[in-house]
Amino acid sequence: VLAGGVGAARFLRGLIRRTDERRLSVVVNTADDDVFFGLHVSPDVDTVLYTLGGLADPVRGWGRRDETFAALGALGTLGEPTWFRVGDRDLATHLFRTERLRRGWTPSRVTAALAARYGVRAWVRPMTDATVRTWIHTRRGRLSFQDYLVGRGARDAVRRVEIAGARRATPAPGVVSAIARADVVIFPPSNPLVSTGPILAIPAIRAAVRARRGRRVAVAPIVAGRAVRGPLHRMLRGLGHAASPVDVARLYAGLVDVFVLDVRDRAAAPRVRAFGMDVVLADTLMHDATAAARLASTVLGSVDPQRP
Amino acid sequence: VLAGGVGAARFLRGLIRRTDERRLSVVVNTADDDVFFGLHVSPDVDTVLYTLGGLADPVRGWGRRDETFAALGALGTLGEPTWFRVGDRDLATHLFRTERLRRGWTPSRVTAALAARYGVRAWVRPMTDATVRTWIHTRRGRLSFQDYLVGRGARDAVRRVEIAGARRATPAPGVVSAIARADVVIFPPSNPLVSTGPILAIPAIRAAVRARRGRRVAVAPIVAGRAVRGPLHRMLRGLGHAASPVDVARLYAGLVDVFVLDVRDRAAAPRVRAFGMDVVLADTLMHDATAAARLASTVLGSVDPQRP
Repeated sequence: VLAGGVGAARFLRGLIRRTDERRLSVVVNTADDDVFFGLHVSPDVDTVLYTLGGLADPVRGWGRRDETFAALGALGTLGEPTWFRVGDRDLATHLFRTERLRRGWTPSRVTAALAARYGVRAWVRPMTDATVRTWIHTRRGRLSFQDYLVGRGARDAVRRVEIAGARRATPAPGVVSAIARADVVIFPPSNPLVSTGPILAIPAIRAAVRARRGRRVAVAPIVAGRAVRGPLHRMLRGLGHAASPVDVARLYAGLVDVFVLDVRDRAAAPRVRAFGMDVVLADTLMHDATAAARLASTVLGSVDPQRP
Repeated sequence: VLAGGVGAARFLRGLIRRTDERRLSVVVNTADDDVFFGLHVSPDVDTVLYTLGGLADPVRGWGRRDETFAALGALGTLGEPTWFRVGDRDLATHLFRTERLRRGWTPSRVTAALAARYGVRAWVRPMTDATVRTWIHTRRGRLSFQDYLVGRGARDAVRRVEIAGARRATPAPGVVSAIARADVVIFPPSNPLVSTGPILAIPAIRAAVRARRGRRVAVAPIVAGRAVRGPLHRMLRGLGHAASPVDVARLYAGLVDVFVLDVRDRAAAPRVRAFGMDVVLADTLMHDATAAARLASTVLGSVDPQRP
C-alpha cells in the first residue's frame, strides 16, 4: 500500500479485516512532515501507525483516541501557535521520534521501533530516509503542506505543488523489494498530488511501480466531483484539472492497471479505460469499517492472484 | 534571593506578601538541569517561575497546578523511563525552552521570556548561562542530581558532591549587579550543598556576596536535626557533617551575617554566633503562605534598611 494520511488509513482499517496484517507492506508519504515546537512530526506515518495499532481516534480521523490537549493549551498560553493540534499522547510519539533522529537514527528505524512498540504487525516504512518536502505555491507565496492544509484551511488557490528533494531521494531500505514482491500494489483513495504523488516522485519507487504491470490497483479519491476528504478537488481545479476521477486516472497513467471507480461516476468509465486501465465499479465511500472491508475485498479481487 | 527549588519557592510565596514583587531579584540554581525525552528541563527555574506566576501545585511542591500526565503515560507505553514526572502543561515550558536554546537563545533570555509570559513581575535569572552540573558521587558511581534525588529516591550514601563547570562559569548578565544593589541578600531555607551551593560555587557570584557584608541573611534549612524537605540531613551525614543548623552555618561562614535559626534549635545559637553571625530565632516551618510571610518579615527585619 502506498499510503498518504487519512484516506489510506481508512482503507487500511478495512484491508486488515480481509487479509493477514503481517502480509501488509505500507510505504508512507513523509513529504508532509514538519516541525512543531522543535519536534519532528510525521503526520502520515503516525496516522498509519495509530490506525494499525488500534490507537486512532475513530471520529476525528487524525490523532489518538481518548486524546487530551493540555500541553497544547499551555503552549498557547506561552504565545506559541497552536493551529497544529498536537495531543498530549501524540506528543509522546513526536518526542520519541525527535530524540532518536537527533541521536542519528534514520526515519526508517524510528518508524520500525514505533510500529513494534504500538503493536503494529504490518511492515510500515517511510518512503525515504531523505528529506522530501511538499511546498504549496500560492499567491501568498510558498507554504508548507501543513501550513496550507491545517494552518490556513486549504483556502489559498494552488498555483503549483512542489515536491522538493524527491528527485535526489532514494527509497528507504526494503521499499523497492516490498513493491517488487507484492501480490498487489495498492493506491488507496488518497490525494494523487500530495499523498501518493510524493511517493511516486522518488525515481526508484516510480520505476519499481512501473515494473509491476498487471498488479496495480488504484481507488478513486473523487466521488461525484468532490474529494472524499480534504482539498483535492480545489487543488485539481487550481492546477487546471477537472475535479473528476478521470483527471486522477490521468495522473496515474502507466502506473495503474485497475481503477476502482465509484458507482456514482460510472459514466466516466470509458474515459478512464482510455488510459489503458481496467475499470471496476464499487461503492468507494468508507462510512465505516465494514464498508472499508468491502472496498478492500473489491481491490484484492480485482487482480488475479495466480498471475505469475 | 539565591534560590534553589522547593524550599526557596515556599519562602518566595511568603516574601511576595511582604514586599513588592517587582523589587525582587531571584538568582536560580541551574546545576540540577537535566535532559528528559530530548528536552532541556530546568527544575529550579521552573519551580520559581510557577510559584511567582501563581501556577505552582500547592500540594505536591513541584510542577503545575491542575496538572495531568497523559504524555508521560504514553511515553511509558513506548518504553521510555518515566521516573521524572513531567506533566502535560509542564511539557510546554520544556518544549519552549528547548526550542529556543536550539535556536541560540541563552538560558537568561529563555528565563526572561518565560517569566514575562507567565506574568512573573520579579526579575528572575539563572545563575549562569554556562553549563554547570551537580554530580552526586556514590558507591554506585556518579549520578546526575535528578537521577540521585528523583530516580533513586536519594537512597544512596553520598561520598562527594561535585559542581562541575562552576569554577569556569561567569554569572548570567545582571546577576552580579543585582547582588550589589540588593537591600538584603537572602539565602532561603535550601540545601547548602546542592541548591545555594552551586550558585555560590561560581567565583564572581561568591565574590559579589562576600562584598555585601552586613546585608546577608540565611534561613536554616534544618530543624531539630532533620531537613525541612529533601535529603539534606542524609547528605550532610554522608559527607561527615552533623545534620545540624550549625553545620549549615559553617558552610556559610564569611558569606552570611544573620542566621535565622528555628526556635526548636535555640540551644545551637552560641555555636552559630561563633561563625561571626547574628542569630535570630523564629518559627521557620512554612506550613502555609501565612507562615511563610511571617518568616519573610523576620528575614527582612533582620537587616537594617538604613544601613549605607
